[in-house]
Order: sequence, then C-alpha cells, then structure tokens
Amino acid sequence: MCLPLFVSIIYCEWDSVFIFSLVALFLAGISLPAVLMKVRDRTIYAKEGLFVVIMTWVLLSLGGSMPFYLGGWIPKFVDAFFETVSGFTTTGATVLSQIEGLPYGVLFWRSFTHWIGGMGVLLFVMAVVPVSENHSIHIMRAELTGPSVGKLVPKGMLTAKILYGIYLALTLLEAILLYAGGMSVYDSIIHAFSTAGTGGFSNKNASIAHFDSAYIDWVITVFMLLFSINFNMFYFLLIRKFSAIRQNSEWKVFFGIVAAATIGIMFFIYPEYNSLLLSFRYSAFQVASCISTTGFITADFDQWHEAAECILLLVMIIGACAGSTGGGLKVIRLQVLWKAMVNEIRKMIHPQTVTRLKMDGKGLETDIVHSTLVYLVLLLGLFIISVFLVAIDGRGMETTLSAVLSCINNVGPGLAEVGPVMNYGGLSVLSKWVLCADMLLGRLEIYPVLLLFSPNIWRRKFM
Amino acid sequence: MCLPLFVSIIYCEWDSVFIFSLVALFLAGISLPAVLMKVRDRTIYAKEGLFVVIMTWVLLSLGGSMPFYLGGWIPKFVDAFFETVSGFTTTGATVLSQIEGLPYGVLFWRSFTHWIGGMGVLLFVMAVVPVSENHSIHIMRAELTGPSVGKLVPKGMLTAKILYGIYLALTLLEAILLYAGGMSVYDSIIHAFSTAGTGGFSNKNASIAHFDSAYIDWVITVFMLLFSINFNMFYFLLIRKFSAIRQNSEWKVFFGIVAAATIGIMFFIYPEYNSLLLSFRYSAFQVASCISTTGFITADFDQWHEAAECILLLVMIIGACAGSTGGGLKVIRLQVLWKAMVNEIRKMIHPQTVTRLKMDGKGLETDIVHSTLVYLVLLLGLFIISVFLVAIDGRGMETTLSAVLSCINNVGPGLAEVGPVMNYGGLSVLSKWVLCADMLLGRLEIYPVLLLFSPNIWRRKFM
Repeated sequence: MCLPLFVSIIYCEWDSVFIFSLVALFLAGISLPAVLMKVRDRTIYAKEGLFVVIMTWVLLSLGGSMPFYLGGWIPKFVDAFFETVSGFTTTGATVLSQIEGLPYGVLFWRSFTHWIGGMGVLLFVMAVVPVSENHSIHIMRAELTGPSVGKLVPKGMLTAKILYGIYLALTLLEAILLYAGGMSVYDSIIHAFSTAGTGGFSNKNASIAHFDSAYIDWVITVFMLLFSINFNMFYFLLIRKFSAIRQNSEWKVFFGIVAAATIGIMFFIYPEYNSLLLSFRYSAFQVASCISTTGFITADFDQWHEAAECILLLVMIIGACAGSTGGGLKVIRLQVLWKAMVNEIRKMIHPQTVTRLKMDGKGLETDIVHSTLVYLVLLLGLFIISVFLVAIDGRGMETTLSAVLSCINNVGPGLAEVGPVMNYGGLSVLSKWVLCADMLLGRLEIYPVLLLFSPNIWRRKFM
Repeated sequence: MCLPLFVSIIYCEWDSVFIFSLVALFLAGISLPAVLMKVRDRTIYAKEGLFVVIMTWVLLSLGGSMPFYLGGWIPKFVDAFFETVSGFTTTGATVLSQIEGLPYGVLFWRSFTHWIGGMGVLLFVMAVVPVSENHSIHIMRAELTGPSVGKLVPKGMLTAKILYGIYLALTLLEAILLYAGGMSVYDSIIHAFSTAGTGGFSNKNASIAHFDSAYIDWVITVFMLLFSINFNMFYFLLIRKFSAIRQNSEWKVFFGIVAAATIGIMFFIYPEYNSLLLSFRYSAFQVASCISTTGFITADFDQWHEAAECILLLVMIIGACAGSTGGGLKVIRLQVLWKAMVNEIRKMIHPQTVTRLKMDGKGLETDIVHSTLVYLVLLLGLFIISVFLVAIDGRGMETTLSAVLSCINNVGPGLAEVGPVMNYGGLSVLSKWVLCADMLLGRLEIYPVLLLFSPNIWRRKFM
C-alpha cells in the first residue's frame, strides 16, 4: 500500500492518503502476529504449498479491496472485491463505468494490482524474503502457469529474483517507450503495469483508444506479445543460451497463431475500415490483447463481423505461453492436446504400433498428457457450471458465455452487455461472485483451489 | 425405396410413385456390378470396416436425397442432401418451413430414414445378408455409439438380429400406443419411426405440439427415454439376466440426470405456465427430447428462461447412453471423464498413491480413459472449427453456437434463428455443408470419418 500512498501524496489527494494509510496500518497490524509466530517446520510440501497460495490470493484480494470500499470509490463491497480480484488475477474486467473521475492514487493501486498479480504474489515474497529452500518449488508450481515448471537455477529464491528482474526491466522499458510516445509519466506507468501483468485496466474510459496513436498502439501490441512469452526465454537470451530458445517450440507456435489470427481478422474487418493499414493495426492490437489475455481495447470489436469475434474468442481461450503473465489455456497445452490427438488417430489405423510422444526433443510423459486432458475437462466443467449460474441473470446467451469465458481466461472484456464499451457493473451479485471465483480459478489453474474443498487437507491441518 | 413406394401407391400419389420407382431402379442398377463383383478376401479388418461404414453413409445420403431433389419437393440439391443427412444421422434438423403440404410417400421416406439410421445402416445389412463372420465386429464398432462395444452373443450376425428385433418390437409398441391415443395409423407410424431413431422429423409443422394431448406427450416422452438406453439392457431383460442390469450404472446415472434436469427446468418455467402439471409435462418432454437427441417439440423453448435453455443445451451435449440410437457425448463417457477427474485431484493430494479406476465392478483401462479424453478434445476442435465456418454467415452468436451444437449432437432444433419454430432453410450453402459434415461426424463419432483424410488408407487400397 505504500506505493499508492506515495502517489496520492504526490497528487495531494488527502482523502486517498488517509484511506491508504489506514488500510496499510490495519493490514500490518493483523499480519504482525503471523510474522512473529514461530514455525517449527519450515519445509513446504506439495499440499501446504498449494494451500498457502490459495489463502494468500483470497486474503490479498480481500485486503486489496479495502481501499476501494472504505474510500467509497466503489460503494458496494461485492463490486470492490470483484475489481480487486480482477486486478490481481490480471483479468481487467471492471465494474466501473466512469474511470476518469477517480483519484490518481486509487487508479495507481488498481493498475498496480495487475503488476503484482501478473508474476505471482508469492513469487514476489520469495524473491524478497528468505524462505526455506526446501520444496519452495511447490509454491512456484501452484502460482506459475502451465503444465510443468522448471527452475532456471537450482535455488528457488534466485529463480524468483531473476524472473522479477526481467519483469521489472521490461516494464520500465515499456513505460519509457510510452512516455516517448507522448503519454504523461503517470499514464505510461499505469499502462506499463497493465501490459506487464497482461491485465487490462486503463485509467481512461476508452482504454487505449483514448490516445488514438499508431505509435502507442504498436508499442503496446509488441509488449503484450512479449509478456505472453515464457520468461525463461528472456533469461536464456540474457545468458546467450540460444540453443534452448531454438529448441523451444511454444513461442514459434504462439507467433504462428498470432499471425494467422491477425490476417484472418483483417480479412473480415477490412470492409469496415477500408484501409489495409488501419485494419492491420486494429486487428494486430486486438489479437495481441486477447491472446495475451490483457484486454486492452482500441476498437469496439463487438461491432465487428461475427467470424472476427469468433477468432478473438478462440485466441482468448488459447491464451499465452506457459510461464508468462498471460492467462488462458496456454499454447503448450494446446500442443500437448494436438499430439495426443494425432497419436490417437494413428493408433486407430495401426492398433499394434506403440509410439512415444515427443515435445521439443524430449519425451512427453503420458502423465503430463493425461493431466492436460483432465485439466481441459475441469475447465469445461467449470465453464458449464458458471454459465449456468450466470444464466440465471437472464442477460442473453452472448453476454453470459463471453463473460464467463473472459473471466476464466483472465481476459477482461466480453461481448454484448459486457462488451468492450460496457462493463460488468450491471450484473447481479450472484453473477459477480461466480465470476470472481472463475477469475481466481482461472488464474491459479483450478487445481489449488479445488484442494480447498478436499476434506483431506483440512483434516491434516488441524489435527 | 420399396416401402415409401408402397405408401405412395396406397395414397394414390402417382408423382411420388414415379419418382421412387425411378430412383429405386437407378440405385439397383448402379449397385448391381458391386454385388456381382467377386471378392477374394472377405475378411474385414479394422481399417476396412471403418472405411466401409463411412462410404456407405455418404453414398446412402446421396442416394436418399434423390427422391427429394428429383421430385422437386426440395428444389435445391444442398437442401435435399441436408435433409437426408439429417434423417439418416437421426438429427431431425429440417430446411422445410412447410411440411404439411408434402405427399404422404415423401414424408414417409423422410421419417423412415430416421428409423434406418437409428440402429445403423450396416448393422441392418449384417442382420439380413450373410456376411463373413471374421472381424465383422469392426463394422459394429464404427457404427454403434459409445466408447466400447461388446457382442451380446459370439456371432455378429445374431447380435445384429437380436438388436433389430428389439428395435422393431419397441417401435411397433409405440405406434400402437400412439394409435390408441387418437393418432391416425399413418401419423403414429411416422412418429414411432422418428422416436425410435431419436430423430425428430414430424409430418406436422408444429411437431408434437400439433396434437396437444397429454397422453401422446407422455407416451413419446417415455419412448424417447427408452430408446436412449443401451439396447443390451432390453436383451438382458428378455433373457432375465437381471444381475447384468443391476450392475450397469449408466442407465441409473442417465435417469438421475433426466430427473435433475426436469426439476431444474420446471423451477424456471413455472412462472410462465402457472401450473405445476403443465410445466412438469413440458419440462419432462423437452428434457427427454434433448437428452435422447430426438428434437421433438411441444413448447417453444426459445422463449423460456435462459437458465432453462442452458440446461437443455447441457443435456443435448450429454446425450443418451452408449449402444442406443441417441447421439451426444454419451453418459458413459461422462462417467469416465468424471472418474478420471476425481482420480487426478486425488493424485494432486497424494502424489505417491497409485489408484486403479473402476467402473461397474470392472477395472477401467487407462487406454479407454485416454481415448475418451482425446475424443472430447476432437469434439471440441470440430465444434470450434464449425462455429467459425458457420459464423461467416453472421447470423448471431446464439444461432451459430446452437446450430453447430445441435447438429454435432444429432439433436435437431437449436435456438434463435434455428430455434424450435424456425428451420435451417435460411442458412447459407456453406453453413449447410458444414452442418452436414457435423451431423455425419457426430453420428459416426468422428474417428471413422477422420480416417478418410489419412493418406495411409488410400495408399493401401489402391496399391
């Protein structure tokens, strides 16, 4: 809370200063006993790791929503919680229709949640606070995205530090480039935060369309794509291990999809803009925004041709690369699914042959394939239940489907009533809670959260 | 073609008589050389079995559409083909807005396609014509639905005969009960055919709503559910092997879903009808119609509450039991997916334990689990591609999604522009072809059709 407090002081917003100090003191107060508590066994096992991650995310969202609610900037608690969850999970779905009237400090906090949530809250803690090295990989595994997590260097803390270093450097670079394009310092920092976390909160009502500058559009497009790549790639680039980059197929597939989707959408929206350059710019921006699950907007894509909308929904589902700040299903999972599919068809033709699946030169364990398949089923189940619950609102199929899809994949804007120029404020309280759950489940990739409902974890904890 | 020819003669429709004779003679003519051709090796392997099945279905649909097209009752070829594919795949999606004006013989043929397609065309051939016993199971496997096929008795031909016997008996029983409820002989036969194949073609514009009789509604509801159960159950019932029925969990889960969905929808549509009995009747009928993927209509469910629509879409996807005439994902696949999911979560908590999955007392092989998971992925892929192609039409997300969903699952009616009181006639030619492919892929459960695109099968055939 200190950073937004600082910002509020700069802009002489004494209301916000008061609220932020209050909340900061309160949170420090309640966390004091936890810090002082002596823990006998500092080893973190798989189960505890998962548990710690979920509790942190839920408590953090509660704490994070306090400034919005107490300050009266978002009068209803459910809305404040929705906005904060949306921030930390880097979804970027908003309940606010008037953003520009809010104090600088509050908007700073709103975008800062993206930046924190993007890389993972506990990863941040791990980078700064020395925790037990044993099994800290379990925290990383729960918080980082994608089917498998590898440590870059043997020590978890160092890995966390390296990842955060890259993250910070890229964010700074983007802020500088945006500033060079004519944004104010404040605006460029806000938007750099939102891009870095692939969140999508803007301090303008019209999102990036407010600036209407080709330069800014392209800078953000490029950075949205950069933040969607596995951060390990940047590390490999730094230490000049080019072979590892060359061997990784995920980013190649990712850029392939981006290129295909951009050209596909261009084709359908060209008649609307009648300019090849303009439709390329809008198409590329929106594809990058959706596949990185950022959710920035330069054009009201709800007005686009339906096939273009379909492509956007599709790339939303695909999502970014594993190990990035983006959400969605992740490109590598798509690759695993594809390989499993091809293999199954091959088996139908030649029932006798046994084939070992390969990925990037290494063997692909059937365990990972299996987990990926089950993950997809879980996602589908979550999707169906959520759609049903949100449908009770009765706001039309398009709104319901796209809202749930957008929240599970941490994108932000949907279609129709939750479209690019609309917001989530009009939904019912039930729908908002469901979507909050979806965002958290989507961000943490379901499994950790499911554990909360497992009787086993509770028994072991308190007995 | 002889049966509809006969019907046409009864009703003195000389136009139809001429067309049906012409088509029958033509088809007999072109199939003559094939029958006379000497085949050296009559053994049917997995690959050939699959190939035979697809080619038969495609050729049959072409042949079946000839009466509609040549007779001028459906002026466009693509429409005639769509209607026939919809018939044979027991989808029941129609392009006709005026059904009642058509000749009796033509409507009889239209519903008869359902009855043939319901049990499987080749299974019919196997029951009547003595074919080589070796590996005829491969044909059954491709044509019957569900993840695994067992022969009831060692001989494939006898199995086919038993299944067809049950099928015929149930159809007759339904026709008699409908006739007792005040339908004409012709109407009761037509509707018994449509129910038996879980198709959904009616000879009335308003479908079953035309009769507006509680008795008829309930008879059809019950028979739609009966035709959705694995036919093996009826056989076990006949030979009094009750233990086999008790052990099978699929039909129990199936009726559980039906009950839950019916009550759920009742809750949402009660305010509309203000009568517990009426909303129960409409809800039960529509749930049975959707889960059995028949597609009969007694109420315009496009006007219902959105949550009720969601439940209907959901049961459409779930579909009937394996080994029935119904379509959809099949209940047993749902069970397999559920078990795999629970197992995966258990593994997350206790990474060391190895658990063997069980189903109905028998062990569940990981191969079947894997295939089921991949099948779901394939369906999803097909769904996404189809939605994209149909979306080019630009008829609104609800129409597009529900049309594709309805066709892949062989249901029939969708929502909005392809809703219960509308028809598929307004779609573009491209959309119709895509939906034709979806219906075939859905009916044959994808795999066999995919083989057509495998280079291997062609090479082996002609070299």
